[in-house]
Amino acid sequence: MAEALATKHTQNQLRTINDALAEGRFVSVRKLLHSLQPSDVALLLESSPTKTRDELWELMDSDYHSDVIEELSEEVRNGIISKMMPSMVVDALEEMDTDDLAETLSTLPDEVLQDILQSMDTQDRHRAEQALAYGEDTAGFIMNTDTITLRADVSVDVVLRYIRLKGELPENTDTLYVVNRTDNLMGLIPIVRLLTADTDQTIQEVMVDEAEAIPVDMPEREVASLFERYNWLSAPVVDDKGRLVGRITIDDVVDIIREDAEHSMMSMAGLDDEEDTFAPVLQSTKRRSVWLGVNLITALMAAAVSDMFEATLSQLAVLAILNTIVPSMGGVAGNQTLTLVIRGMALGHVNQDNSRYLISKELAIGFFNGVIWAVLIATVIALWKQDYMLGVIIAFAMMMNMVAAALSGATLPLIMKKLKIDPALAGSVILTTITDVVGIFAFLGTATLFLL
Amino acid sequence: MAEALATKHTQNQLRTINDALAEGRFVSVRKLLHSLQPSDVALLLESSPTKTRDELWELMDSDYHSDVIEELSEEVRNGIISKMMPSMVVDALEEMDTDDLAETLSTLPDEVLQDILQSMDTQDRHRAEQALAYGEDTAGFIMNTDTITLRADVSVDVVLRYIRLKGELPENTDTLYVVNRTDNLMGLIPIVRLLTADTDQTIQEVMVDEAEAIPVDMPEREVASLFERYNWLSAPVVDDKGRLVGRITIDDVVDIIREDAEHSMMSMAGLDDEEDTFAPVLQSTKRRSVWLGVNLITALMAAAVSDMFEATLSQLAVLAILNTIVPSMGGVAGNQTLTLVIRGMALGHVNQDNSRYLISKELAIGFFNGVIWAVLIATVIALWKQDYMLGVIIAFAMMMNMVAAALSGATLPLIMKKLKIDPALAGSVILTTITDVVGIFAFLGTATLFLL
Repeated sequence: MAEALATKHTQNQLRTINDALAEGRFVSVRKLLHSLQPSDVALLLESSPTKTRDELWELMDSDYHSDVIEELSEEVRNGIISKMMPSMVVDALEEMDTDDLAETLSTLPDEVLQDILQSMDTQDRHRAEQALAYGEDTAGFIMNTDTITLRADVSVDVVLRYIRLKGELPENTDTLYVVNRTDNLMGLIPIVRLLTADTDQTIQEVMVDEAEAIPVDMPEREVASLFERYNWLSAPVVDDKGRLVGRITIDDVVDIIREDAEHSMMSMAGLDDEEDTFAPVLQSTKRRSVWLGVNLITALMAAAVSDMFEATLSQLAVLAILNTIVPSMGGVAGNQTLTLVIRGMALGHVNQDNSRYLISKELAIGFFNGVIWAVLIATVIALWKQDYMLGVIIAFAMMMNMVAAALSGATLPLIMKKLKIDPALAGSVILTTITDVVGIFAFLGTATLFLL
Repeated sequence: MAEALATKHTQNQLRTINDALAEGRFVSVRKLLHSLQPSDVALLLESSPTKTRDELWELMDSDYHSDVIEELSEEVRNGIISKMMPSMVVDALEEMDTDDLAETLSTLPDEVLQDILQSMDTQDRHRAEQALAYGEDTAGFIMNTDTITLRADVSVDVVLRYIRLKGELPENTDTLYVVNRTDNLMGLIPIVRLLTADTDQTIQEVMVDEAEAIPVDMPEREVASLFERYNWLSAPVVDDKGRLVGRITIDDVVDIIREDAEHSMMSMAGLDDEEDTFAPVLQSTKRRSVWLGVNLITALMAAAVSDMFEATLSQLAVLAILNTIVPSMGGVAGNQTLTLVIRGMALGHVNQDNSRYLISKELAIGFFNGVIWAVLIATVIALWKQDYMLGVIIAFAMMMNMVAAALSGATLPLIMKKLKIDPALAGSVILTTITDVVGIFAFLGTATLFLL
């Protein structure tokens, strides 16, 4: 063992499968698929066009479906489930843990979900309804319910014998929980503690009684940030009466941390954060068009501002040529501030107390940026166009726009957060509109005053 | 216990400290600081302006320094260490695990590192040099060396007694490793397995012998993606001869996953991914100016393209007014494709085999986008400016630019990856240059041909 293998190995396997599929060697494909780990099969499906995806799914034994579905990203998973027979889906769901079941069911389109629920027997339907009982994106939604609980008055020895008799613990169990008669969480015991403790001691004596529990309705992002901040591997989940209802393990949290961090980038480009890289063309076109439509409106607004200066532009074509420079620089500078503030908010660095300081700091940067680029652009334009007045005018506009960019970049996310709008989604487009309008207005307006 | 506490609680604590500091109640600040967890103190420091940061650090007992330094982000950490006396830094470093020591030392500015190494005694310096022996951002760099190793021929009972005698296991130990005489990794035993196994069995009989080991020189991003894909909690690290040299635990990997996911967003805005939200004004101004300078050059390039059509613009001011619409739409559409491809590459979905398919898919989306927005903009312009020919011309330019945007958005990251340039860093600016130039050229060029 200990063969140092890596992603390269996996990539070679995936290539072999693709080649076999292209050559129609379906028996080999089938064999190869079944030799892979579920997460590798998921990667293969996510890296394939939808047509290939469906072919591969057909070739796979239905025993593997459940494990692979668990590993797929939302959009790819929904695409596959929607094409499966409801009864096949029900079979696959039966083998899932509560948290994976909740995740899988909750994101399905409504009609597909109804079809599946109707194909279930009473027991399965009950389990599905339980999994869906907690709000999406809460601690209850991502928790597992297979906790091992102990009473405080038994001895370590008894617990050790109980575990050995049981023969197996639920996956990723690193902690046992101590509860009283009414299931209230009293403390917890890391498994390792059982190995080092004196076997005659009682659980009461060896348990950690100051551990923190997660309320079942805590948003999953807050859960993730607690795990990240305190380096937890698992944590108990309690209801509003302090009763233990489940546990959350780090492997579920890792996905949330990645999604959370990716979310801002995807949103800032107007892409849904779950977007499938290989989604069908028409579906992608339709999705992206919303964002392009919003941008068209802002571009037309900028054009309308220029339109107010038609007389100026028709007399001085050079203004038309230079008209894009100031808005462009403002957009870039503003987006730097915006990105920094959005990230700072996501990491919990930006709060009510320091936001005023942050705004003044960004304004100062905007001012210095303004001075630097105003001087530079004035020099370039004065030399290029041999017109010093034009240089002074563009410098003034640059100065104005850099300050406006810093101010909007720093305040927009804070304002939007108060209005409960996702700053990553709409911040960038509003910012660009502001820097376009201010930039054009400052440049063409000043030019109209001084050059005509 | 089990008080369901949360980030809100922490935020209140942080506010209390800020208030106490503002009112000069230093004794309270000191007391409050020492009552917090190290990661909360780190959050407080990261959320404070540099001046407040220094004051807080001064007030803190030096016993706490080591734990807090471990939790700080690179830039904030370096700022604080650079201002500390080298001998104080040495004291703080003494208590760190190898992986934290390596991380802390490796990012320090060279002169600070030299000062610190010179203040160390021989033993500490040897330890520091060992920590820095592996390349930054490799498995060896993030691993811990405090593994517990066993021989295959001993019985479970002996191991259990050994652990109980030892009384404590290294932090986050969930697995013990089985090695032979030459330290070659033979297998591993999850701690839980020791609790459920028959105590008379030998380690050989109960160990997992097909586990994967991470080569010591594997890049940390690859390590993170393995942990993420296979839901590992820890993994052994081996050298090129298969000898066990350490272990990596999930809590170290979580930070890498977040940094990795954030990296693209920060780079696309031209920000260093470690940038401190509260960095001093002049430092931030200087850093961001590189990106703004690059953007100024591209803005001037776009202006130079417009300049070629000065004669056209001076005859038809309406062209000047509409000149920004087509480049703007191309930039947005191209950035959507670019972002999607960069993310797909980061997740391992995009590879050599499917990149041709991806390009043709994005081209198809670009074509459809082109048709949709060409028709729409033509209608708007024809109605607004009462000029049908103008509508046709802008539609043609839009069509051209949308296809160019899709083509560059899909191919640029692939080309840049081959050239070993970070696509997130330079992709966006090159893309915008292309869509600006193509957009202006297509619009003003066609207008010159047909309207003059």
